[in-house]
Amino acid sequence: MAEIDAARLLRDLYSLREIGTYRTGVHRPTFSPEDVRSRHWFAARLAEAGLTVEIDGIGNVIGRDPSPGRKLLLGSHLETQDHAGWLDGALGVIYGLEVARSLGGGIDVAAWADEEGHFGSFIGSRSFCGLLTDAEMDRCQNRAGVPLRTALAEAGFAGRPRATVDPARYRGYLEAHIEQGQVLEDKGLQIGIVTAIVGSRRWRIVFEGVQNHAGTTRMAVRKDAGVALVRLAAAIEDRFPALVNERTVWTTGNIRVEPGAPSIVPGRAEMVFQFRDTDAAMLDRLTETLQALVAEANQGPCRVTLVETGRTAPAAMDEGFQAALEAAAERRTPGRHQRMPSGAGHDAQILAGRMRAGMLFVPSIGGISHHWAENTADDDIVMGCRVLADAAEALLTEA
Amino acid sequence: MAEIDAARLLRDLYSLREIGTYRTGVHRPTFSPEDVRSRHWFAARLAEAGLTVEIDGIGNVIGRDPSPGRKLLLGSHLETQDHAGWLDGALGVIYGLEVARSLGGGIDVAAWADEEGHFGSFIGSRSFCGLLTDAEMDRCQNRAGVPLRTALAEAGFAGRPRATVDPARYRGYLEAHIEQGQVLEDKGLQIGIVTAIVGSRRWRIVFEGVQNHAGTTRMAVRKDAGVALVRLAAAIEDRFPALVNERTVWTTGNIRVEPGAPSIVPGRAEMVFQFRDTDAAMLDRLTETLQALVAEANQGPCRVTLVETGRTAPAAMDEGFQAALEAAAERRTPGRHQRMPSGAGHDAQILAGRMRAGMLFVPSIGGISHHWAENTADDDIVMGCRVLADAAEALLTEA
Repeated sequence: MAEIDAARLLRDLYSLREIGTYRTGVHRPTFSPEDVRSRHWFAARLAEAGLTVEIDGIGNVIGRDPSPGRKLLLGSHLETQDHAGWLDGALGVIYGLEVARSLGGGIDVAAWADEEGHFGSFIGSRSFCGLLTDAEMDRCQNRAGVPLRTALAEAGFAGRPRATVDPARYRGYLEAHIEQGQVLEDKGLQIGIVTAIVGSRRWRIVFEGVQNHAGTTRMAVRKDAGVALVRLAAAIEDRFPALVNERTVWTTGNIRVEPGAPSIVPGRAEMVFQFRDTDAAMLDRLTETLQALVAEANQGPCRVTLVETGRTAPAAMDEGFQAALEAAAERRTPGRHQRMPSGAGHDAQILAGRMRAGMLFVPSIGGISHHWAENTADDDIVMGCRVLADAAEALLTEA
Repeated sequence: MAEIDAARLLRDLYSLREIGTYRTGVHRPTFSPEDVRSRHWFAARLAEAGLTVEIDGIGNVIGRDPSPGRKLLLGSHLETQDHAGWLDGALGVIYGLEVARSLGGGIDVAAWADEEGHFGSFIGSRSFCGLLTDAEMDRCQNRAGVPLRTALAEAGFAGRPRATVDPARYRGYLEAHIEQGQVLEDKGLQIGIVTAIVGSRRWRIVFEGVQNHAGTTRMAVRKDAGVALVRLAAAIEDRFPALVNERTVWTTGNIRVEPGAPSIVPGRAEMVFQFRDTDAAMLDRLTETLQALVAEANQGPCRVTLVETGRTAPAAMDEGFQAALEAAAERRTPGRHQRMPSGAGHDAQILAGRMRAGMLFVPSIGGISHHWAENTADDDIVMGCRVLADAAEALLTEA
């Protein structure tokens, strides 16, 4: 078994954290000056490790082992949510670098652009997998309204070719990530082996009533869009629990009522809703229930419209990859690992459409995620890389 | 019976509408240049009518009949909501002017400052009634953050004495206003005689949970502030109908959830809630129910806090004044009038604490209010003033 260099691994993670430091975390939104700097920094590290490096036309940083033979592709992402954690994404790319250095061959490493979705949905890994059209790129923009094309031009990546996958080159894809939940910590475990990545359905629900004076408009004649929203949102909370399993999640992430004044009956309201599960049939069932609840809501005084704003399919991880990760975990940290689904989305769900794929989790302290306080114990960081390296070594020598 | 001059009445309303015209309505927020101009314009009209005029230190325009004897005080307000209607407030002050001119004595006229609440709650009429302290004036500011003191200085009214009521001078207060609802129009009536002005209780309800990742945080461990809000808001809609009468109104005017992102479980949420009724006992009963619902909500995973942000007491209109208005209405437009409560607040509810008070409504086309499209038929405008003048004449000659 090859051994990783734990000190070197941590040193690289600390160096990366210095690019865009915010308190104990980092602020490195996609194609910000800090993010661009981190891509060049990472490209230099990959080159030092002997890989042939490219930053492509979507900002993906890809290091390729120039030796012959089939490779394993390891990766994750460099950019962060706003004022967020230092390990979300960074962990997986630095693991890739460290495993490539430790094994001395057989490993390609990728830092996918914009997994965090500042400009679009998995645009880096989807570009690599041939799933991102030029037309979609034309439409992408961030919350500040900056077009993706403009951001790429300012970053210096516009006009470059976009790298695309050669499935024949790869044995498969491995990604490590912080758990972003509290399951491993609660059970005192060090390693999670991902069985599947949840799929999601995302919705905007619009309620149209009649704006009116809150003092002079009798209840009997009101068409209160806010009340219609509250009733539907409450009906979802009442009906969903009987339909789901203990891992299914659903969230009303935002509510807006208009005009939002104390003494005005709301004439319009909107909610942003989503649900996630590893089972596509469950997503279909919840969709049907939501549609039925919206139809019921339309019997009331307001017009209720359901708009699908996005969906991702659940992605099962490869059984052989799970077994390899599990064997490595059992050897390195006996009994302190478990298989588990991923409730968050990851580039691995995109890569899984093109090759065998596997994912490994390390614990998140307190389950904190998408916040600058996010952290993982050094011992767990090192253990995750050891397990990943062992599994990669085993998979490379498979028949 | 004295006769009003219908052409002169409408001409003055049209002239006033030209100060701050917005589409078919007006934009004349309190102490804006347009509002200040309208106060000077109105003061000049009162002076032409032979009244002794003062614009006081809170911006109230008050015209006093210099002749001896007890007076009736007629009034309403000049400023408007943003981009709102041409008659809301204006109708009552121009009626006051026209009645003073028509009766030729016995009438004082007031345009109360800021009934619309840009800077505070009924600050003009409360100042006149001795209910506005200097300390409260120091705290008042508008939504743009401009202090009341600054606005008064810029308007040229700072440093003037504030007029206060001499209850012995007055037989009582009469105010006319547009209905701001659709009851009169629906029944084909021309005059509403107000029985009481609703009181209100206003609340902010704050929900504190734990912000978390919408994919990785299992439902069982969530403390979702948005769900807590939705459940309480729905419980209010379920419980209130059994407690109220057909005139009671309650409104959730605004909802906010934080951070309001699609994939983040809300950690904090807030709703703005109010209810109104003419019966103080009803307001107490609803307050108790709301407190009980909040206590129940606190059994859930989030902390729920109920903050009272304001209250006004219901104000009954004087029975004799109602009778005088009703007799005048029956003479001028037989059978086309009714008694009704006012769901909106008016300066009359403040004045009613110092003297006998009565209010008259004219129909609002389509019930539209607080919108530039607000309107009333000319015939109804003229009829309202005739009834008000007749009632005022009768009340002035009462034993």
